[in-house]
Amino acid sequence: MIGKKMIDLAKELYPINRSLSGEGVRETLKILKRENPELNIYSIESGSEVFDWVVPKEWNCFEAYIITPDGEKICDYNENNLHLVQYSIPFEGEIELEKLEKHLYSYPKLPDAIPYVTSYYNEKWGFCISENDRKELKKGKYKVVIKSELKNGVLNYADIIIKGKTDKEIMFSTYICHPSMVNNELSGPVLATFLAKYIKNMDNYYTYRFVFAPETIGSLIYMSDKLDILKSNVQAGFILTCVGDERDYSYLSSRYGDTLADKVALNLLENEIKEFKKYSFLERGSDERQYCAPGVDLPICSVMRTKYGKYPEYHTSLDNFDVVTDKGLKGSYDLYTKIIEILENNFNYQVTVLGEPQLGKRGLYPTSCTPDTDYNLAFLYRNFLAYADGKNDLIDIANIIGVSAYKLVEVAKLFKEHKLVKKLLY
Amino acid sequence: MIGKKMIDLAKELYPINRSLSGEGVRETLKILKRENPELNIYSIESGSEVFDWVVPKEWNCFEAYIITPDGEKICDYNENNLHLVQYSIPFEGEIELEKLEKHLYSYPKLPDAIPYVTSYYNEKWGFCISENDRKELKKGKYKVVIKSELKNGVLNYADIIIKGKTDKEIMFSTYICHPSMVNNELSGPVLATFLAKYIKNMDNYYTYRFVFAPETIGSLIYMSDKLDILKSNVQAGFILTCVGDERDYSYLSSRYGDTLADKVALNLLENEIKEFKKYSFLERGSDERQYCAPGVDLPICSVMRTKYGKYPEYHTSLDNFDVVTDKGLKGSYDLYTKIIEILENNFNYQVTVLGEPQLGKRGLYPTSCTPDTDYNLAFLYRNFLAYADGKNDLIDIANIIGVSAYKLVEVAKLFKEHKLVKKLLY
Amino acid sequence: MIGKKMIDLAKELYPINRSLSGEGVRETLKILKRENPELNIYSIESGSEVFDWVVPKEWNCFEAYIITPDGEKICDYNENNLHLVQYSIPFEGEIELEKLEKHLYSYPKLPDAIPYVTSYYNEKWGFCISENDRKELKKGKYKVVIKSELKNGVLNYADIIIKGKTDKEIMFSTYICHPSMVNNELSGPVLATFLAKYIKNMDNYYTYRFVFAPETIGSLIYMSDKLDILKSNVQAGFILTCVGDERDYSYLSSRYGDTLADKVALNLLENEIKEFKKYSFLERGSDERQYCAPGVDLPICSVMRTKYGKYPEYHTSLDNFDVVTDKGLKGSYDLYTKIIEILENNFNYQVTVLGEPQLGKRGLYPTSCTPDTDYNLAFLYRNFLAYADGKNDLIDIANIIGVSAYKLVEVAKLFKEHKLVKKLLY
Repeated sequence: MIGKKMIDLAKELYPINRSLSGEGVRETLKILKRENPELNIYSIESGSEVFDWVVPKEWNCFEAYIITPDGEKICDYNENNLHLVQYSIPFEGEIELEKLEKHLYSYPKLPDAIPYVTSYYNEKWGFCISENDRKELKKGKYKVVIKSELKNGVLNYADIIIKGKTDKEIMFSTYICHPSMVNNELSGPVLATFLAKYIKNMDNYYTYRFVFAPETIGSLIYMSDKLDILKSNVQAGFILTCVGDERDYSYLSSRYGDTLADKVALNLLENEIKEFKKYSFLERGSDERQYCAPGVDLPICSVMRTKYGKYPEYHTSLDNFDVVTDKGLKGSYDLYTKIIEILENNFNYQVTVLGEPQLGKRGLYPTSCTPDTDYNLAFLYRNFLAYADGKNDLIDIANIIGVSAYKLVEVAKLFKEHKLVKKLLY
Repeated sequence: MIGKKMIDLAKELYPINRSLSGEGVRETLKILKRENPELNIYSIESGSEVFDWVVPKEWNCFEAYIITPDGEKICDYNENNLHLVQYSIPFEGEIELEKLEKHLYSYPKLPDAIPYVTSYYNEKWGFCISENDRKELKKGKYKVVIKSELKNGVLNYADIIIKGKTDKEIMFSTYICHPSMVNNELSGPVLATFLAKYIKNMDNYYTYRFVFAPETIGSLIYMSDKLDILKSNVQAGFILTCVGDERDYSYLSSRYGDTLADKVALNLLENEIKEFKKYSFLERGSDERQYCAPGVDLPICSVMRTKYGKYPEYHTSLDNFDVVTDKGLKGSYDLYTKIIEILENNFNYQVTVLGEPQLGKRGLYPTSCTPDTDYNLAFLYRNFLAYADGKNDLIDIANIIGVSAYKLVEVAKLFKEHKLVKKLLY
Repeated sequence: MIGKKMIDLAKELYPINRSLSGEGVRETLKILKRENPELNIYSIESGSEVFDWVVPKEWNCFEAYIITPDGEKICDYNENNLHLVQYSIPFEGEIELEKLEKHLYSYPKLPDAIPYVTSYYNEKWGFCISENDRKELKKGKYKVVIKSELKNGVLNYADIIIKGKTDKEIMFSTYICHPSMVNNELSGPVLATFLAKYIKNMDNYYTYRFVFAPETIGSLIYMSDKLDILKSNVQAGFILTCVGDERDYSYLSSRYGDTLADKVALNLLENEIKEFKKYSFLERGSDERQYCAPGVDLPICSVMRTKYGKYPEYHTSLDNFDVVTDKGLKGSYDLYTKIIEILENNFNYQVTVLGEPQLGKRGLYPTSCTPDTDYNLAFLYRNFLAYADGKNDLIDIANIIGVSAYKLVEVAKLFKEHKLVKKLLY
């Protein structure tokens, strides 16, 4: 159900001609705002300085294709936007195959795939073509048409803020700069959209922040604008990327792997998913590069399905709806909603009595001791109380006991009702 | 010799009708006081509030049995006190087998065993019977007789304090509430009795405290009375339970496994016993539940032979003198006396000279260096001195060198005599 | 080339009759001073008190041999100085073989080898002989001649100090008390000599100290004289011993294995040598016994080829130029010069921009992203910058990335030039 809704949104966004900037990004954000009207859309002018970087020009492409010597139209941008190297400069002319070859990109490992190629910071033009189609090109003159523009304009990005009882925040960041590919990246903004809907239906303790920005330059822009508020408020955050396939579950750590985000992710993955891929920060490749940079130091990690670069279709036209499924998206959605439930209840707990409380009189412990008595739940209760010593948060307790913290959410609430534990707020 | 004496005492205590409270406990304590006249016996009234608990009524049973339709007397409490569910309320009447069955407990896994069943906090009555005997019961009317009393009385417990040069204490706690079963628990009070005798023959540095109390409620009562003194004085403590069989050696850690008690136990078990079972605090089940509870935080662990629940005869009539032997008890006695010797010498040591002392001139090092020189003892000496840097206690040094701290007790004394090390007292 | 020069120096020093004190040591130091005129030579009088020790008498031997009943001269000290037990007292006389046997040392495991035997602190005399030769000795009277002297004289030692930009020091210590054996020990002073030459050709940041002293008593004397300066200045140090064979690489840790010396040694051995032997401080046997003693606590470890005691020829006449080679010495020289290069650049580094710097505009990052782009060097750069957060020194960063710190020396210099990192000096 929720999986189906996510797939439908992904399919609606799929054909749009997104890039680092331009009309496609704005069109995408408009659809996302329809889903969550709280979405705030921002723009920044080309040429603005952002830390060590400069905001690049706005790029739009209206038409781009090649006419073969036989008169056939190939590499048509409006048929598949991966055919054109992102940020290609305008060009029109006739050139020999030999010269054209220097502007062509293919991917022999996946001969049917159109590769995804960008050149944001080096002005040039190029086309991407499947290896199989490339091999069929004959000698002769090719007509090349690229009607694009690189102009001083704006770069767009957006966020959703859902206020909670505290200013302390949980943050999710995803990106909106890739053209027609699904796991990397439509799965990210789609999941973010539905997690925002989930939170709006909660009585949330934390404030939640969802960031939608082009990768790298977008997160730098966002950070440069909001650094102080992010540094003082964000308690845990996650990069939402590659969250739509059914293969692996994966975790990529924060810079030192020691943040609340890492802690909740690992507890859940180890105890509920069990088999998952664990990547160090050395294998990073997305916006944690910026959010976790020295001096920024946000507590952010990534929980993914199959990591970028680790599935064959990555960064090609084959990263499509054969790779991403409603079941794959649903798996990520379930994991992240559990992460949210745990974080919402992740306080330090302190037992209110000395010695073990008498659970039996509260109906929480067997009253007779026989050789057949089942103590499983009683032991879970006792173990929770033993480590609810004020020094451990819910996840610490779960880690000591060796269970998913999600399983302890209800236990904590139960003992809270019985006034046998109190929450410590910091 | 010492093993034989311990077995004899266990045999004397075996038939007494112990329970959480009542005459059997008092009779047991009287015999223990004969062995160690320093034993202090205490009582607390039924209904007293103890932390989250209330002291239950005093229970005594004078007679309890069943007469079968054939006129045979079975389940006779005075023949084997396990036949009656502990804290059974008085009852006399004739009932059909079908109704009686709801009051019968047997243990199909060990069909010859009478199981041990308690119902301290839920008033009811019941009998325990071997599975084999139970199967032979025929339809018909059974006469049930339980002449017991549940009255406002007292609950008894006791301690022995052996003063040392310091008020700092080593504590041993054991329990006296189980009827006729030997490993769990007569082995505990018997070992405690003989360790107390051992310490009285020492020139002890620490003050030693031995606690004899019914399990759970008894340790809660004892703690509630002495919490301040226990918290400020106890340096290390041990639960004495299941210390009489010849099978495993076992260790169950304190709440975080980081106390002096854990440290000495692990050093000795790892280096002298080598093969032993290691249980986490999650597998606890005895009075460490109270002593190690949050806010109490006493530095207490358990060194056992085979842990409760881990041997088939546990909590049945087959936990008898086939399970517990003089050799089994002697193994525990030897381990605990070594623990005591280590603790008595477990100071931080600091070498008194800079650079290595010249051991050769003191006869502690070979004076010629040839290819055949045996340096084993010399290396032990040198390694002790290298880590006697004031930061390590005897057990730390032993752990670094990889030997039993018991082996270093004499080395420490030797260097103390040679004035090459000094003890640091805190 | 450098290996050949080291072997030549070792061969020149080989025949000299070294011992703890005496002419042989002075002759050795004279040659070392020819190589590095900065060598300072010191002397201390016999009988001087040094911590727990007393400086022994000066020993010289002019002639020592045995004449067999057949008139053959054997065990001639001037032919091989290992034939005489070091510090043998003068003796001349004729004795029966039976009595002589008590003064003979051989080594059955290596029947061709003359063992190395000392008796510095116990006055006696003795000869060392190969097991094969010993077996041929016939009954009869043997003439023994030992023309030695044990007199109040001096014990000599030396150092080289090469000043750097800071008083903080890197120290190397080696010993000069062994007669004609090469791995243990001529390899040590020879390597020290050539490392000193290497540093004199550098623009060194640290001050370098090279110590040449007889083992044990020599390091104690040196320490007792310079303890304050050593304790306040030495940042890392190494014992140079057994650095000349081609077999293992070995590491022996400092007392707690946690010093800068251990850190640089392990990073280099783990990442460049990969297969090496790791010995704990419990297996020590050289001057780290003194330098790492409690209260001295110098940050010193040993990086060796095959450790003393771990190769069959150790402490025998077979520890010769079959064991030590120019290639073996060169291996140690290369390792230690890399250690020096790392230490010279081992600062804490801090990136100067927030977020990732834009490496592409500096030619340090691929400007197009295609499926074939090689990111290896770019990733090394990014990883260096990610952990250049001011908390990590060069070795920490290398350990996190999993590379040799030597490999990062150039990376650090590159980013320093680009002003993307600054060095933090403490």
